[in-house]
Amino acid sequence: MHAVPKATSTAENPNPSSSLSRANLRDRLDVIPSDPTSSSTVTAASSTIPKPNLSKGSAQLNRWFRARTIRSGRRLERPVQTNNQEITIPPASGSPPRVVEVSDDILSSEEDDAKKKKIYMVSDGTGWTLEHTVNASLGQFEHYLADYKACAVKTHLFSGIDNPKSLVDILKQAAKDDALLLYTHADSSMSESTKQACQLWGVPSVDVLSPTTVAIASYLGVQPSGISRNIPLGEEYFRRIEAIEFTIKHDDGAFPQYLHRADIVLVAVSRTGKTPLSIYLAQKGYKVANVPIVMGVNLPKTLFEMDHQEKVFGLTINPTVLHTNRTARAKALGFDHAMQITYSEMDHVRRELEFAGKIYAKNPSWPVVGMTGKAIEETAAVVVRIYHEKKRKCSMPSISKRY
Amino acid sequence: MHAVPKATSTAENPNPSSSLSRANLRDRLDVIPSDPTSSSTVTAASSTIPKPNLSKGSAQLNRWFRARTIRSGRRLERPVQTNNQEITIPPASGSPPRVVEVSDDILSSEEDDAKKKKIYMVSDGTGWTLEHTVNASLGQFEHYLADYKACAVKTHLFSGIDNPKSLVDILKQAAKDDALLLYTHADSSMSESTKQACQLWGVPSVDVLSPTTVAIASYLGVQPSGISRNIPLGEEYFRRIEAIEFTIKHDDGAFPQYLHRADIVLVAVSRTGKTPLSIYLAQKGYKVANVPIVMGVNLPKTLFEMDHQEKVFGLTINPTVLHTNRTARAKALGFDHAMQITYSEMDHVRRELEFAGKIYAKNPSWPVVGMTGKAIEETAAVVVRIYHEKKRKCSMPSISKRY
Repeated sequence: MHAVPKATSTAENPNPSSSLSRANLRDRLDVIPSDPTSSSTVTAASSTIPKPNLSKGSAQLNRWFRARTIRSGRRLERPVQTNNQEITIPPASGSPPRVVEVSDDILSSEEDDAKKKKIYMVSDGTGWTLEHTVNASLGQFEHYLADYKACAVKTHLFSGIDNPKSLVDILKQAAKDDALLLYTHADSSMSESTKQACQLWGVPSVDVLSPTTVAIASYLGVQPSGISRNIPLGEEYFRRIEAIEFTIKHDDGAFPQYLHRADIVLVAVSRTGKTPLSIYLAQKGYKVANVPIVMGVNLPKTLFEMDHQEKVFGLTINPTVLHTNRTARAKALGFDHAMQITYSEMDHVRRELEFAGKIYAKNPSWPVVGMTGKAIEETAAVVVRIYHEKKRKCSMPSISKRY
Repeated sequence: MHAVPKATSTAENPNPSSSLSRANLRDRLDVIPSDPTSSSTVTAASSTIPKPNLSKGSAQLNRWFRARTIRSGRRLERPVQTNNQEITIPPASGSPPRVVEVSDDILSSEEDDAKKKKIYMVSDGTGWTLEHTVNASLGQFEHYLADYKACAVKTHLFSGIDNPKSLVDILKQAAKDDALLLYTHADSSMSESTKQACQLWGVPSVDVLSPTTVAIASYLGVQPSGISRNIPLGEEYFRRIEAIEFTIKHDDGAFPQYLHRADIVLVAVSRTGKTPLSIYLAQKGYKVANVPIVMGVNLPKTLFEMDHQEKVFGLTINPTVLHTNRTARAKALGFDHAMQITYSEMDHVRRELEFAGKIYAKNPSWPVVGMTGKAIEETAAVVVRIYHEKKRKCSMPSISKRY
């Protein structure tokens, strides 16, 4: 059994109208109605169950930590996060769950699979928010996950779980798998049932979205609807769809006569990452055009004739990384040897980047964003921040939206 | 002052090595070191501060709730979520913060702006996870937000906040704006400082990612690294980039000879939403090709010759919605009247959808996904779930990933 942080709280005065569906669920769960006060809230220090052994792999962790800190240019005195948080321990008692028989590859009892830790993600919606959250959190355990031999982690996303039957099957399987359960339900009776079943069956669990929703409810002074959310098909949604269509049409220098209609124009040499960056920004609702810089080819006149030169972004990248990207690309495309040399040869790469650098120098209003060693999401965050700063000319560099 | 749910917890044994940076931050914050036990954990029922008024707009909410429930085909006895959760009340005492002077449009004292509620989102990374979470939570307040006159909500995303100076400026502004603060910091000393400053200045706040990270740490028995996460540029990352490039190249029936290389092939008549759906799936790492169905034009032979027919998805849509989409499109493209009639006329729309239906009937291994009234994210979730179900032939329909 694992200690779990106190993230969900008990609704002590459940709406009486919920009793029917909750009673149904309880029947399914074979759970006797539990006393809401039975969940024990303790601090790890005073817990009577063994504290999780956090020293596992710590020598390796320390080496990794030092190496990464040095690489990142930070000082080494940064602490590793301590973990003495308030936690809720599911009661040890309670009948073991009757587990559904499932002949599934993830549930096989093979030795390799038994070693894996399992994170179950259960959502009544698409589950993407949960997946984002778990990915972001798992980023804090890179050092551990990088070493597959230590212990692989497998995540299982269950989306669209809006009925007690499916929920029960998953919870039983989670208990059988000794999994960690992360969930979001808009419906408070589903949340409450999940929490109670997890406590009874010793499944560590966190209601991921609830703290945020409760805080917003409290702040606005409005109750959450409690209805599984459909993504609203409003004005902003259709603007995003339009942005994607615009961006695809204006990939790789196509239709330069419409550059002025773009929100953002990306300019860079081949294989710098213009296309995936454009697409990511389009998903966020920005109409993006991208224009390749090719030695000996003039950039389209319309680029320089636009009113808003500050919406043009130059991208740059380390020549060695670019060379590697291009060699890989040339192989993938099956270029013959002569062509491959022109396209990827290191000297050529350097000259082309210099050529791009001169263009950027002549256009000082274009911000230049470095792409080396960064994911598209990270460079997108930089571009969007600069875009909003320039647009709003404010000293608090935030990206603001009205709802 | 607003009640906030207990989402962050105090690290009671902070690592001594963190004292330097924390001391620095305290100087900046003008905060006397606070007793970690001073944050009072109470339930709303026993709270001495006034409970937030949750009845505001409740008649309207109830109407909206009933209407939406009926539309969604659910029973009406579903309860509105109750809100009696454990909350942390920032102590009322403490010197008011010295607020930085910022001449910013979001900070203007115009009457219109003063009415807005402000949600500040502060992240040491890109902030996208935080934005996803807040969007998902705000989906629970659609009924309130739809009525702009009641009270608009403005969100402000501050990304890449990795130094105390910027953090302090934002926290002070949040206090001045009576904002709700949602934050994620990998560095525990930054989290702790944020929490203390918010308590001192009466800013309601939630550490959004912490419950998940703490649960995973406890489950894996490993400490989180505490280092602001870069998105790892591993194999999966480059697979996603490749998927985006593949998908753009294979939009709208291009290069049908390579259909067999796609993970997913979408087939539908024009304006059903093939392109944005393809792009969304590509961002998730799936190579997608989409093929238009046009009356009188044969689908490419390669589509039927592929080994894995189950990776082909037919899309369908309500004829009235499709007609509306097409009329809008025809206008946007400036079609002349004759062409517009062929493309968008209702009878033609119906016949084309029937034609598509016949193709789907002849290919029963193709799942058919309805696009009417759903966001791309929602149909993508359906496609991905079916894709994994078919691939794994399992009875627990999850999307599984190994880390």
